[in-house]
Amino acid sequence: MLPSNLPPFSFEVVAECAHTRARAGLLHTPHGTIETPVFMPVGTQATVKGLTQRALAQDLGVQILLANTYHLYLRPGHELIGRMGGLHRFMSWPNAILTDSGGFQVFSLRGLRKIDEQGVVFQSHLNGDQHRFTPESTVDVQLALASDILMVLDECPEYPVSHEYARQSMHRTVRWARRANEHFRRRTAESPPQSLGPGQSLRPGQSPTGTAHALFPIVQGGLFADLRRECANALLDLDTDGYAIGGLSVGEPRPLSLEAVEATEGILPRSKPRYAMGVGMPAELPEYVARGVDMMDCVLPSRNARNGCLFTSGGRVIIKHTRYKDDPRPLDEKCQCYTCASYSRAYLRHLFQSGEILYAVLATWHNVRRYLDIMREIRHAIVSGSFPEYLRYVRSAPVDVE
Amino acid sequence: MLPSNLPPFSFEVVAECAHTRARAGLLHTPHGTIETPVFMPVGTQATVKGLTQRALAQDLGVQILLANTYHLYLRPGHELIGRMGGLHRFMSWPNAILTDSGGFQVFSLRGLRKIDEQGVVFQSHLNGDQHRFTPESTVDVQLALASDILMVLDECPEYPVSHEYARQSMHRTVRWARRANEHFRRRTAESPPQSLGPGQSLRPGQSPTGTAHALFPIVQGGLFADLRRECANALLDLDTDGYAIGGLSVGEPRPLSLEAVEATEGILPRSKPRYAMGVGMPAELPEYVARGVDMMDCVLPSRNARNGCLFTSGGRVIIKHTRYKDDPRPLDEKCQCYTCASYSRAYLRHLFQSGEILYAVLATWHNVRRYLDIMREIRHAIVSGSFPEYLRYVRSAPVDVE
Repeated sequence: MLPSNLPPFSFEVVAECAHTRARAGLLHTPHGTIETPVFMPVGTQATVKGLTQRALAQDLGVQILLANTYHLYLRPGHELIGRMGGLHRFMSWPNAILTDSGGFQVFSLRGLRKIDEQGVVFQSHLNGDQHRFTPESTVDVQLALASDILMVLDECPEYPVSHEYARQSMHRTVRWARRANEHFRRRTAESPPQSLGPGQSLRPGQSPTGTAHALFPIVQGGLFADLRRECANALLDLDTDGYAIGGLSVGEPRPLSLEAVEATEGILPRSKPRYAMGVGMPAELPEYVARGVDMMDCVLPSRNARNGCLFTSGGRVIIKHTRYKDDPRPLDEKCQCYTCASYSRAYLRHLFQSGEILYAVLATWHNVRRYLDIMREIRHAIVSGSFPEYLRYVRSAPVDVE
Repeated sequence: MLPSNLPPFSFEVVAECAHTRARAGLLHTPHGTIETPVFMPVGTQATVKGLTQRALAQDLGVQILLANTYHLYLRPGHELIGRMGGLHRFMSWPNAILTDSGGFQVFSLRGLRKIDEQGVVFQSHLNGDQHRFTPESTVDVQLALASDILMVLDECPEYPVSHEYARQSMHRTVRWARRANEHFRRRTAESPPQSLGPGQSLRPGQSPTGTAHALFPIVQGGLFADLRRECANALLDLDTDGYAIGGLSVGEPRPLSLEAVEATEGILPRSKPRYAMGVGMPAELPEYVARGVDMMDCVLPSRNARNGCLFTSGGRVIIKHTRYKDDPRPLDEKCQCYTCASYSRAYLRHLFQSGEILYAVLATWHNVRRYLDIMREIRHAIVSGSFPEYLRYVRSAPVDVE
């Protein structure tokens, strides 16, 4: 529980690396304290595909999940989730939730979308219906979801874009962030945090969980360092509880993603958490942390798990390979997860080849655990002063199991 | 653990209903004691679709699973499972396993199959390859799997068949049962039960788990009472550890299935467990028990769960119905399962509509629990002398939730 002298959201830096920009911290939220650097598993449709909330919270120790506003807005709808008491209660999740603004999904849709100063019009991928997101409406949607950490609507350009387009888009994203932040402050001021008793119903505009929320603006600017810096400087005025770095993992070469993060590290306040959106591969996690990142999310551990790509302490295991068909060893002998404690590679391969649901469950369980273990290793290295050595070790490690 | 004065397999009747043929018993096996009447969840491909072995054993208290010889023979192959130490070790399952003979799958295949006195030739549904099952070979396959309870190869005719075809088929099934039983006794005599130490390898013919096995013959005879009785009488000579009743759930009207079971109740020895294969709906479970059945299995709880049909103490819930979209109640307020303790109907419906893996997990969890709860209620009623009242209650209960 929160110490009573702390506001609902606060961030403490508890250790800093002397040689990189890495730091270990504690992010206090109304749904628990999060040890940073943290990796947030993705629960797109109010579920991390294949895992129960019990496995996530109790077995894996997940302190914060990400959910996708776009998907929940379309199905089952944010009003319904709001009536059900918010996303925590709807999906029976006890810990913190961060929601994106829906912008990324809208801009990665293949269908019709039209952007103007007001917002973006898009078609549902489910039935083609036309919808509009504005900076204000996505705050309203996320407040109905009652997520702990909300994101502003941003435009997330594809890679590559011209400097001129990136500049115009970034300026619009900044204007949207201001509008979103004003709307968020107005909305949360009119419905001060209060707890909702059993059987009490919500007044219009009231947050369904009655707890406080934080809003993060998003640094954009394509892969142009000058635009990234200009964007970060412009967002500082908003004085929000944290900052996100968007526009990564949109097809650019990996070194450029790291450079985009580096560009603003010295501008974003070190007293606030920084969230690099949509990254990354296991070996990239400490690279982002070395550049001052505190929070990350990615579908890779869960999606790759389902596709047969498993991350272990010895590298990747492509489970369909014939060499695993009678391999009695656990997937990762150094891993303490339920999957590795209970099952062999041969059994996992059999389940994968047979298209069994249990494969997705066990594979996701392991991969999420692997990501969380990496984050624990990173945090431990920062706190114990050995992060540079850890980074060297990760850089020299093989990608695939020998 | 087994009392030392009991053989590896033994069956005790601990209570009998004074008004029906129902009884409560204990079936002792090398992998634990099973309280009967028992429902066995189906783990076709060495997994109960959607559930971890931990959920099955620890959360649900499943004492015995069924696995399908046909499927495991084709993929990953019984030799592989044998080399991996048998099915228990392969799938990491601590409790008892019953395997069918593969006959039911072979005879329900649409593809080419050819039956003769020797056995049956069939095509793999996976790749069309031709295979042959004989009464002897399916014993060998099941011994490689090292299941606790094996079934003999039987012919399972469709419904309807002529009396003449049913008679000829039944006689062949009896001849096959004799051959299977002789082969089983020879095989198990040459590899006496002994425990296999870590690192020890198997000798040819040795059971991979080094434990004892039981073989059940199967009563057939279509839906003709005279043939059923003749079959049961012929099988008595085999003096096996239990008897199965097959040829049910092949499209016949439900009352006829019960009559087929009734026909042989007085013939099959009351000192041995009776297993009605492939049944049934929740309301049918006590009907079979009332007719002397001790063991049942069915894909219904798991398959129907995945298809959106959930069994509750108040009747069936078809979860896709719009009326559940904002229903905050648990699926079954009287149920103690993880699903009902944690999630609402609205959330389950959302997961179902979204095609989420977690839907299959939570739905199967509940439905299997519901079946096990029914079996516990039945056993409790028998032991406490109230089984006739329980039966009347079940017969008057609504099929669907009001």
